[in-house]
Parts: sequence; C-alpha cells; structure tokens
Amino acid sequence: MRLSTAFFATLRENPRDAEVVSHQLMSRANLLKKHGAGIYSYMPFFMRSLLKLQNIIREEFERIGWQEVQMPILVPAELWKESGRWDKMGPLMFKLKDRKEGDYCLGPTHEEVVCDIVRSQVTSYKQLPFTLYQMTNKYRDEIRPRFGIMRGREFLMMDGYSFDKDQEGLDVNYDKISEAYCRIFERAQLNFVRVAADSGAIGGDSSHEFHVLAQSGEDLILSTEDKTYAANVEKAECAPPEMTAKLLGTDWGQETSKAFEEVATPNAESIDDVSKLLQVPAHRTIKTLVYQFVDAKKPKETQPVVAYIAGHRSLNEVKLGAVLQKAGFSLLSLQPMPPEQVKDLFQCAVGSIGPIGGPEALRKVRTYFDREIIATHDAVCGANKEGYHLVHVEVSRDVLPLYVEGARKGVDLSTAVEGEPCPQHPENKPYTAHRGIEVGHIFKLGDVYSKAMKTVFTEENGKSKAILMGCYGIGVTRTLASAVEQNNDADGICWPKAIAPYQIQLVTLAKKDEADVIAYADSIYESLKAAGVEVLYDDRDLSPGAKFKDADLLGIPYRLVVGQRGISAGELEFVVRRNREKSALKISGVASGDIQALLKDLQRALEQ
Amino acid sequence: MRLSTAFFATLRENPRDAEVVSHQLMSRANLLKKHGAGIYSYMPFFMRSLLKLQNIIREEFERIGWQEVQMPILVPAELWKESGRWDKMGPLMFKLKDRKEGDYCLGPTHEEVVCDIVRSQVTSYKQLPFTLYQMTNKYRDEIRPRFGIMRGREFLMMDGYSFDKDQEGLDVNYDKISEAYCRIFERAQLNFVRVAADSGAIGGDSSHEFHVLAQSGEDLILSTEDKTYAANVEKAECAPPEMTAKLLGTDWGQETSKAFEEVATPNAESIDDVSKLLQVPAHRTIKTLVYQFVDAKKPKETQPVVAYIAGHRSLNEVKLGAVLQKAGFSLLSLQPMPPEQVKDLFQCAVGSIGPIGGPEALRKVRTYFDREIIATHDAVCGANKEGYHLVHVEVSRDVLPLYVEGARKGVDLSTAVEGEPCPQHPENKPYTAHRGIEVGHIFKLGDVYSKAMKTVFTEENGKSKAILMGCYGIGVTRTLASAVEQNNDADGICWPKAIAPYQIQLVTLAKKDEADVIAYADSIYESLKAAGVEVLYDDRDLSPGAKFKDADLLGIPYRLVVGQRGISAGELEFVVRRNREKSALKISGVASGDIQALLKDLQRALEQ
Repeated sequence: MRLSTAFFATLRENPRDAEVVSHQLMSRANLLKKHGAGIYSYMPFFMRSLLKLQNIIREEFERIGWQEVQMPILVPAELWKESGRWDKMGPLMFKLKDRKEGDYCLGPTHEEVVCDIVRSQVTSYKQLPFTLYQMTNKYRDEIRPRFGIMRGREFLMMDGYSFDKDQEGLDVNYDKISEAYCRIFERAQLNFVRVAADSGAIGGDSSHEFHVLAQSGEDLILSTEDKTYAANVEKAECAPPEMTAKLLGTDWGQETSKAFEEVATPNAESIDDVSKLLQVPAHRTIKTLVYQFVDAKKPKETQPVVAYIAGHRSLNEVKLGAVLQKAGFSLLSLQPMPPEQVKDLFQCAVGSIGPIGGPEALRKVRTYFDREIIATHDAVCGANKEGYHLVHVEVSRDVLPLYVEGARKGVDLSTAVEGEPCPQHPENKPYTAHRGIEVGHIFKLGDVYSKAMKTVFTEENGKSKAILMGCYGIGVTRTLASAVEQNNDADGICWPKAIAPYQIQLVTLAKKDEADVIAYADSIYESLKAAGVEVLYDDRDLSPGAKFKDADLLGIPYRLVVGQRGISAGELEFVVRRNREKSALKISGVASGDIQALLKDLQRALEQ
Repeated sequence: MRLSTAFFATLRENPRDAEVVSHQLMSRANLLKKHGAGIYSYMPFFMRSLLKLQNIIREEFERIGWQEVQMPILVPAELWKESGRWDKMGPLMFKLKDRKEGDYCLGPTHEEVVCDIVRSQVTSYKQLPFTLYQMTNKYRDEIRPRFGIMRGREFLMMDGYSFDKDQEGLDVNYDKISEAYCRIFERAQLNFVRVAADSGAIGGDSSHEFHVLAQSGEDLILSTEDKTYAANVEKAECAPPEMTAKLLGTDWGQETSKAFEEVATPNAESIDDVSKLLQVPAHRTIKTLVYQFVDAKKPKETQPVVAYIAGHRSLNEVKLGAVLQKAGFSLLSLQPMPPEQVKDLFQCAVGSIGPIGGPEALRKVRTYFDREIIATHDAVCGANKEGYHLVHVEVSRDVLPLYVEGARKGVDLSTAVEGEPCPQHPENKPYTAHRGIEVGHIFKLGDVYSKAMKTVFTEENGKSKAILMGCYGIGVTRTLASAVEQNNDADGICWPKAIAPYQIQLVTLAKKDEADVIAYADSIYESLKAAGVEVLYDDRDLSPGAKFKDADLLGIPYRLVVGQRGISAGELEFVVRRNREKSALKISGVASGDIQALLKDLQRALEQ
C-alpha cells in the first residue's frame, strides 16, 4: 500500500480519555476511531492485524476439528427467558424491541443460541462430540467502558462451545482446546501465561484463563518461575501452614496451657498495633471479617457470613465466594457488611469482634476459619469488647468447640502472595507475581445450560441425557490491544511480526525532483509486492523526520530507507523497529537484477 | 472434514415458511438455522462459502486500493440526528437505549459513521481520494422478512464509501469500482448482469445495480441479448415513438382536421373495451392516472399529480417519481390517489377523466404527458363525463394549449416491455426480459451526506469544499442465497466451484467389516487434504442411498465414490454434481504410489 493513496493520518496528542498506553498509541496511529463511550471503528491498518489474528485462530481451530458458525447478534428474548438469564443479566445487557414490540437483546454471549442450534439437529450419541465457534461482535453495556477497545461495549470475541456425551469426552476436548489456545497465542508471538482460574458460579476446578503479560494488566497472576503452575491471584492456593513453617520458617506458635485472658489494648486499631503492643507476630493474631451475601434461592434476604484469617493475610473474596457456592449457595452478591450493620448485629465494632464470647448471634452466623487459624497456637483475637483483646487463645481448645462441626475444618480463604511456596508445584517453588490482561477463558460448563435449554441426546442405552458442554472465549480485539500494551516503547508500537499490519515499511527520502530515486524506490516496492511481501510504502511528500516518526508510531517490524545518499553509497538502511538495530543492505546498482539481489538479502533479514 | 465428526444433519422436509427454493435447500442442507423472523445462524458449511466470497471481495478491492475497516453496529443517535435521518428512517431502523438512556440504532447503513471517521482525519485535498469499505452485519426491521436470508432483518453486507475532491475523480472511481464488482461476481461464477438503475432521491443517472439472474428474482431486468445495455425495468427507457414507428411499425395515427367530439361509450370500462368499441388501437387511446405525493418541504400536505400515457402502456411509478424529483420535489411518498378523493377533486371517476374539458381544477394540477401522447394523432380520451369519450383529439391542437409550457414537453413515464427496441443500444436491438435478484448497488452520492455531516476539505485554492462521495453495496449473504437460487436442481444445490463449501465429497461405501476399503478411503482423504484439496469425507455409518442423497442436497461440485466393488474393478466413480456426468478413475492398486497417480487424475478432473 502506498501511504500517499491510503487513508492515514497520525495524531500528535493522546486522546484525553486514553488512560493506558495501548489506547493512546492505537488512537494516535490511526488504528481506532471513537464514536461514543466504548464504541469504536477499526481503521484499515488495525483491520489487517485483526484479520491476521482471526486467521491464526481459524487455522488452529480447523486443526482440532472445530467448525465455524455465525450466530445472530440480534437475539430473540425467548431464548434468554428459557434459560432464565433474561432477567439475571441486568443492565449489562442491551435490550430492544422490534416494530411488533417483540423483545430482543444484543448477544453478550451465546450459550442459549448455540443450544437452540444443537437441539434442533442432535438426537443421538452418534452425533457427538463436536465443537462450534464463532467470531462475532459481542455487546455489554459496561458501567464504565474504558481503556479503548480493552473494555468496550461492542467488541469482537471468539466464543466456542463443545458438546460431549460424557465427562471423559469433555475432559479430552478441554485439554485439546487448551493446547490450541497456547498455539494461538504463541503464533501471535505474545508473552502469555495460562492460569488456573476460579470457576465462579458453576463450581468445579476446571477453568483456565489466558493472560497476556503487561505492566498495565488489571489481573495479578501468581506463577512459579518455570511457569509449571500459574493462577489468577483470585484462585492461587496459599501454601498450607506446615509448608510455610517448613520452607519459610513461619512460626505458628507453641501450644500453651495458659487459659485465654482479656487484656486492654487501648488505641491499638490495626493488626500491626496489636501485634506490636502484645509482642505477638501478626500471623498469630486472628483477623475478623464480616460479609453479607444474597442467595438466589432467597433473593430478597441478605445473609451474614464471618471469616477468620491470620492477621498478616488479606481475605480473598473469590475464595470466600467459592466456599459458599460449595456449601450450596448460589450467590447473587457478596460484599463486606456495612460497619453500622455489624454493630447492630453483634453489638461491637468489627475491629473488636473475635470468635470467643460476645453475643450468641456470633455463633449462629455461618462462620469459616482459614486453615492457618486452625494451625495457630497461643493466638490473639478480638474480645468482642472495644479496646480489649484475648491472648493465649488455643484455637482447638477455646474456639472450635463453640462452632458447628462444618466450621471447624479450616479452609483456604486468604490471598496468596509473591514469595510463598506454591503448593501445586512439585518442588513447591515460590510464587512470582505478574500483571496480566485476560484474553482467553476456557470453562467446563457441564449440563447447566443444556438442561435449561433441553439440549439432550439419546445415550447408547436409550436413555435421554443433557449434553455436556464446555465454553471457550478469546477476546479478539482485546488480544490486539494487549499485544500493543505488551509491545511498545516511548516512540510507539512494536508489533509482533505475526500480527503486524504489514511486514516492512519502505520509506523513501526522495525529493520531488529526484526522479531516479523515486523510480528506484517504486521498483523496490513493486518487487517486494510481487514477491508476496506485505509492504507499506511511505511515498508521501513529507520530511524524513515526519515519516520516521509516523513509522515508529505505527510500529511495522522492519523499515527500509531509500534515499539519494544511500544509493550513492551503495547501501540502504534496514532497521528493526523493536530494538532499533540498524544494518546496511549492500546494493550494487538500481537495475532490476540488482533489486533481485537486494530482495534476497531483505527476505533473509525479514525471516530473522 | 470427516462428516462422522461434523455437526451436520439434513432435513427431509422444507420449513413451512420457506417460499423460495434457496431458503428450502439451505434449510434442508443444514446451512441455516432460524431463530426468529429474519434472524438466522449461519451453519459451518455455509460459513465456508461465506468466507470464500468474502475473500474474493477482499482480493478484488485490495487490487483497486480499497481499505477495509469495521464500523460499529451499535451507532450513537447523535450521528443520525446530525444528518437528519434519525427521524426519517422510521420503523425500518432498530432503535435502543443504553443504561444511561442514551439513544442508539443498529446501523442499517453507514454514511453518517464513515463521515464521522473521515472528517476527523482529512483536512486537505492532498489526502484524497480514497475508499473505505467494511463487511459487517446490517439491520433492517422489515415489515415482512422472508425468503430466508434473502430478506432478513440481520444480514451481512459489504458497504464501501469513496471520497473524491471533484466529479472527475468520482467518475473515475465509479468506473473502477463497477469493473471490480463485475470481477467479483465473475469470480464467484454467477450469471449476473449490471443494470442501469434509478438513482432515486439523489437524482442524476449514476446508479447501477448488479443482479444475479434467477427465475424467482423479484426484479424485472430488460437487457439487449448481447447485454451491452441492461436496466432495471424501473429505469429502462421506453423506445421513443419515432423508433417504435420505424422498427415495430407502430401507427401513431394521421393528423386529423376533424374537431374532437364526444361519443357515448356505455359500459366500456377498460382501454380494451373503448379501443374495440371505437375501433381505435389501444396505443392511441389516452390513459389517465391520478397520483398524490408528499414533498419533504411540505410534509403535512398531499399534492395531486396527473399523468397521461398511451393506453397500451403501464405507468412506471419510479419514472413518475424521478420526474417529480427533477422538478425539485423531495418525495416522502408517491401513490395512487384513492378513487373517492379523485371524484371529490375532479367530479368524475378516474376512468373517465381526460385532459380536455372537465373542471378547471384539472388544469391547475401538476400534469405530465408521456412522449407517446405528444406523438399521437386522432386520439381518444376520457370526456370528464362518465359513459363518454372524446374522439378525433389532436393533442397539439386540443390538449397542449390548455396546459403550462412545462407540461407540454413529453416525458418517458411508461414501463418498457420485452420486445421493444432499446434506445440505448447502438443498433436499437430489442429488449429481452430476465428476472434478477439485486445483489449489488453502486451510487454516486455527491455531497449530500458530506455537506450534512460537515465532511469537508481544503482545495488547492484554499477554499473549503464538501467531499464528493460514492457509496457501494454488496449483499454478501444475499449473494450466496441467490447463488443457490440460480444453481440447483430437483435434488439439491449445485454450488459454483468458487464458493462451494468444499471442492469434493469423498463417499465411502465401506461396510464396518471392510477394513481395507476403509483404510483405502482414509488414505485418499488424507492424501487429498495433504495436497491442499478441500475434501468433505462422508465416512458416516449410513446406507449408500442416504449418503448420495445428502451429497446431492449439499451440492459439493464433485463426488468420488470408494467401495469394494470399485476397488475390485480397478475403477472409482467420479461424478460432476451439476450435470451428473460420471467418469471412471482408473486405479491400479491401493498402495500409496497408486494413490498419487489417482490424485493426479483427480486434480485434473477438478480443474475442468
């Protein structure tokens, strides 16, 4: 493409709303045009990258036998009402009416629609398994759309759905898909990590996220350095206390025969204050957290839950949610109980609540102890009386007998941190922390949707059974934004070769009257095109500085510069965008035979 | 793809709502799945055809330097309010609100959005010309969605927009694009015709449609047999009277010196009746049509218009509309005036109205005469009195002096018919009639939208000017439906090779225990795949009859049959789907060297 005939103009200034570097660079490089909050046009050079990524996805899915479909964006409400999600989705879903007052939504995801397809065709186990996927726009009316196309309201997503007759089949499919995902992100030349993820409302441990690593990532990833294990911090298991004792020397205290006693702790408001005042390490103080949740079965009722964790830890809300789900609740919400309500309920400020004593209400509430609490001896906890704490608390002696048996087993409720041993790693190597942008998510759904949508088949034994589903997503436009987020420098984007809009940017420094230089650059351009090289030719009537600046911003991987001086010297400048490595490509002349020699050198350079 | 692992099941029955053959066949062959009125999922094999057609479009547009973009489907109302079309579009446009009560539509077309893109970047003539296009879903809330994806409410459309600094540039662009369209439909192997089309509200004669020819087409196309000229019947010019006189011997009558006189024509209600009764050929009787229209400048007022055409003709409403547009009206509607209103206005039933006599109101109304009326002598017309006609009417003597000068010039208001000479053809060859499905439309927009959307540039002389636009559409999914409409037989689809889901269907007749036949068919499948041939392998556990039936329905261009009998005989059956031509491909054995020989024969056959 000749830039002189292209629709292309770069901006000097970042858009005011561009908070992250990918949004800034993509706006300035004319890759995106905003029309409204979270609503963008994809401009020509971005489209080229997008089509390349889509092709990689198509090829890898074709390899594992997936079949591509396209489901409607405009989805009749009936399907969503059938699954029960029409009301559940809330204002995140765009809804509209047609001229006959029929209800529709703009599909935020397509479990319902794909079930409608499958149930109309599949009757027998003989027709299973298979997987359908699509790459279409999805719609979510985000409260705060931001970061450009990283969190838009309209975005391109790949969503795939697998259909199996049994769990074994689903497991096999899931692993195959997980590998295909890895190949996709590898081929896109992105630094990514596959992480174990919380499986949310569905339960089970079969959910993985794929994160592109970047400083600005919203997610915290904990992984061992060799990446044999990686997890979203929401999911990453804390090292069990015996492991931290052994590997980090954490002292969980000695059993004490002293009875617990109340001591005054005036003005000691934080765990740190209490720890210092009482000379007990923070991890042997017991931190109390009071939350409330709404269960789908009692949607109008707010239920309290109390969690006790070690003082040096932060509560992991996702883990608390998972524990509640496991206990049979279907959570509509989970959040800290407002302080005034805590006081109403337990006649005490949250900072002073402890598992011993206090009002009887405290024992009637659903309660969970972190397993570190179970392991602690000679501990400190709130006295249910402001300005006082209890010391010499033996949890198994003083606390557990007060609670129902279910509460006495410790659970992992804390947020794991960098440096602690990874219990999933064969050698328990320590976690290292990374920031990631979630670009993919795979999930064993089981029969949740197929049951609701009556998507059943007849087994070999003649019985009817709901098909087991998996669902698989890749944020396609988001992956490209995160590629920019991961690959840039002060001057602009450094596209990975595999998803760059073009392979090489040919820049001519010819002045208007240098007909021979222009002709030479033109012939290189034509030869490169003829050789199948994707070349962007900056033949605009602009200064060299302006051209180089635009080239840096746009971030095509390689640059070849043609000017009078280089031709005279018999050398053309070849620059690798990413590391600015310069080399000189020898030219012996401007005849077509010489250009062929140059082309060979160039193609060697491009392959590096 | 192995059919045994594919999501694929054919239907025996046509869906109840499938009126046209493409809808029937595409439903039965599992290419489409309906979810609601005019809302479909595109199934895997259809997607393959769709991607092929999209690739052809991309390649041809890349060749002429078009750049692909993707504009939002969810479009903020502000843009449509700016152009004034927010209210004009009426219920055809899907509208919705976001969580902040902001107004949006689902884009039915994107002139506004593309102007929003261009005006944010283009300032100078130096940046022109260029063309942007996209292939995205479009939305129209049709009153009666039907014919499957031929008239859906959600459909995939290519829409392109060119931007030029002057009319000359736009003309050059338009011709280049028209050629690219021809290459696209040629490469898709469709029998199509490019026709001159009415340019509707915009005026000018620069609009062409591209029609795929098919019996069921909704449009009537008139073209000369050599196709040097073709036009939608809405637009096709009637032969002027001197041409029909010369080439068809049409007798327009001799000038008469008799004064016109009133004769009783009791019970003569139709032109035929009158013609017979008065012994005057139908084309010398004057037919009166009374219409009413609403002009955008007076949107609350209905204005009458009277058209006089020769008795053997039908009025062409589009031509009448064009004449009104040319007279400066911007039509919101144009329709026949209800009979009771005609009677109110002219004190006479519409069948008896004529241009002479009657109430003075008749002369005050906007009136148009077809040029055939002007050429007619000794004519017959209504007497403005029920049961009577006037005979010996000399139009130039008796009629024209009664009307304003503007009305006295004849215009072409009639619908051209098969057989009459084509005035645009160098030898005035006769029109032949075809049915067509409109799949493309190209259009010189001029500055209508760029003015409304302030999409301007600075000319070389420093003045600001609105950019001249062209707009170009291809109904991508509709093109595929029309390909099926054009290419089918009693048993199913006969896909053109270029857009077939697969090139060849390999059918094995192996029984479960014929391991060597299975292995042989498998190895042909793998070899074909390895050779880059797109092969669909029917390895299902079904009877040969069922497999052949499905293959006929799905319509893959070629079929290769592998069975025990063929292997024993040393010949495999090769069938061309379109004409059922069978040939035998010799095989010498089932070793891999023999398969390579077979492959060569096959590839030769596929290229034919």
